[in-house]
Amino acid sequence: MINFTYHNPVKIVFGKGMIAKLAHLVPAGSKVMLAYGGGSIKKNGVYEQVCAALQGFEVVEFGGIEANPRYATCMEAAAKIKAAGVNFILAVGGGSVLDGAKFIAVAARFEDGDPWQVMEGKVPVTAALPLGCVLTLPATGSEMNCVSVVSRDDTGEKLAFSSGHVFPLFSILDPETTFSLPLRQVKNGIVDPFVHVMEQYVCRADNTPLQARQAEAILLTLLEEGPKVLADPENYAVRANLMWCATAALNNLLGCGVEAQDWSTHMIGHELTILYGLDHAQTLAVIMPLLYQHQIQRKQGRLAQCAERIWGVTTGTQREKAEQAIQKMKEFFEAVGVSTSLTSYGVNVEEAATKAAANLAKRGAKLGEYGDIGAEEVAAIIRSAQ
Amino acid sequence: MINFTYHNPVKIVFGKGMIAKLAHLVPAGSKVMLAYGGGSIKKNGVYEQVCAALQGFEVVEFGGIEANPRYATCMEAAAKIKAAGVNFILAVGGGSVLDGAKFIAVAARFEDGDPWQVMEGKVPVTAALPLGCVLTLPATGSEMNCVSVVSRDDTGEKLAFSSGHVFPLFSILDPETTFSLPLRQVKNGIVDPFVHVMEQYVCRADNTPLQARQAEAILLTLLEEGPKVLADPENYAVRANLMWCATAALNNLLGCGVEAQDWSTHMIGHELTILYGLDHAQTLAVIMPLLYQHQIQRKQGRLAQCAERIWGVTTGTQREKAEQAIQKMKEFFEAVGVSTSLTSYGVNVEEAATKAAANLAKRGAKLGEYGDIGAEEVAAIIRSAQ
Repeated sequence: MINFTYHNPVKIVFGKGMIAKLAHLVPAGSKVMLAYGGGSIKKNGVYEQVCAALQGFEVVEFGGIEANPRYATCMEAAAKIKAAGVNFILAVGGGSVLDGAKFIAVAARFEDGDPWQVMEGKVPVTAALPLGCVLTLPATGSEMNCVSVVSRDDTGEKLAFSSGHVFPLFSILDPETTFSLPLRQVKNGIVDPFVHVMEQYVCRADNTPLQARQAEAILLTLLEEGPKVLADPENYAVRANLMWCATAALNNLLGCGVEAQDWSTHMIGHELTILYGLDHAQTLAVIMPLLYQHQIQRKQGRLAQCAERIWGVTTGTQREKAEQAIQKMKEFFEAVGVSTSLTSYGVNVEEAATKAAANLAKRGAKLGEYGDIGAEEVAAIIRSAQ
Repeated sequence: MINFTYHNPVKIVFGKGMIAKLAHLVPAGSKVMLAYGGGSIKKNGVYEQVCAALQGFEVVEFGGIEANPRYATCMEAAAKIKAAGVNFILAVGGGSVLDGAKFIAVAARFEDGDPWQVMEGKVPVTAALPLGCVLTLPATGSEMNCVSVVSRDDTGEKLAFSSGHVFPLFSILDPETTFSLPLRQVKNGIVDPFVHVMEQYVCRADNTPLQARQAEAILLTLLEEGPKVLADPENYAVRANLMWCATAALNNLLGCGVEAQDWSTHMIGHELTILYGLDHAQTLAVIMPLLYQHQIQRKQGRLAQCAERIWGVTTGTQREKAEQAIQKMKEFFEAVGVSTSLTSYGVNVEEAATKAAANLAKRGAKLGEYGDIGAEEVAAIIRSAQ
């Protein structure tokens, strides 16, 4: 186990009817920007619950934050905040709205030039507007971490930043708000947390047996509960379990003391989203099995453990078990309805390999827990797709 | 899963050499009370590390906080704080020093009468001095929660309180500081977290599959790592894993959404400590198997799950599996060197049963996750001891 600091001050308020608690969670006297996405919250009753709870607060609305939130949209929101004197952001929606709100919170307090410099890692975050969250789409874990991913059209980039300044003050998680989610988002919401856990678990993680078992706890629960939600979308218990799994998958706990996490599946996946508009989880379902196959030599120990503890594989060599772990993960993604075939999304494999590798090469990417996945390896990984 | 709020703002600073970080963790300009126990920190180098890191701060020392910290000692410390104008407490030691420091922090800011009213649940905590921690004995989990247990000689009570005001601002966990622990404390430090987990796991916990697996993650790790530390006390990796397990066992995460936790083993155990001076973990090792046997009818479902997932039991009826889970837990406590026999500690069973039951009756205790363990049941449980 390596040295680490763990600090996660987000207050989680979980359960039925908890949106009403907003009245006490938003700091008294705040002028609130109510930030949301495409407007689904106006159809499922969440908007009304939020407005009822915010009575007495001055509220400025900002709708239209996209899936894979865009720099230009966020900058527009930040300008509105400055103009209106807003001092608290309430993000209502899924991970994209929340990621957008985190960047908006930084941009609204950014004094010196273009806040995109933060995404490029050129400038540290020194301040951000406080923010809170009402989560309606469990998947990204953004509700209990300080990470944000934003896309920029004019440069063709999808980048992440992380700063203690953008931990939500609170996040309200009411599983009932997820009953009406479109099926595609429900499926994505199973794959996304699964892959988040794998990135922190199938990596360089010597002598971290508790963290490994904490990771396995989430994987096994997703395995059990994932298929149930597809069969019974209004089962509160199942929705609650999935929502809590997604939060646990990316609240930084699993990575404590872990030598080097992977995250290369995410980095390559981001390129596919930028190039072809695939959903984030779709890119993960395509790339992770291919990447693990490519890296099987170095990853086979942990993959074999995964085969034994997650997939119940009891026979075979370490290598055979590792192959089984990849195969069974692929089957699981397919079983919950997320295709692992790149061509099934209408993408030309050769073109994707060339373009994604070129984009990553531009940023000098050396991905993976050993930094051994460069542009050439990325191209080979994508080329192995079907 | 029931509704819940989870909020744990403690900053964990974990690893070798991390005590040096104190200089930046203690708020600048603080006047610090350095609170510690019987003086072991002056023998193992921790005192020197702490003093070196606190150069530039004004420091008032307060040593002598006992195992099972006493009300009278804490009140003395609180008086010293008021007299000296201390505004930050640094607790250096194990759970007892930290629990004492939490009560001291409340007492130092308590305006209206005797702060013991807080322990009795008569008065809420409205303020406390900020505190930080350097942990040298992993066991109680106090370093990452807001609970404190204090004993009072003149009333023969050992009571607990909980308040968000006493979350440590930070806790430094350097596994190397545990190399020199006396063997008895090392053994206790395996049993104590194990029982903490069980109290939150073998209880009323419907539809909380992730929380169950998170509990099992800790139990399985303790099972693997516990015996190793006895064989190889200066193995850093093992010490680090045990330290992190103890913290995870009682940082409130396992209880999220759980309908009703148990904690009756603790409540009964406290009486044995008060009456006979047994170590906290010794009382837990004695009482938990007896209590589970007494409550087996209502607990057998979860105990059978425990038998399967923790102890690898694959055959038998649910009842037989539950019996196996109790038996194997008992054997584990014995294997790590903590006796489960009450008479082995020189205690008269009949007297203990009568006195402990009478003490709990005085407080009208209705223990357990169903509130069905009253004085009579406590007497029966202790009487079943050997």
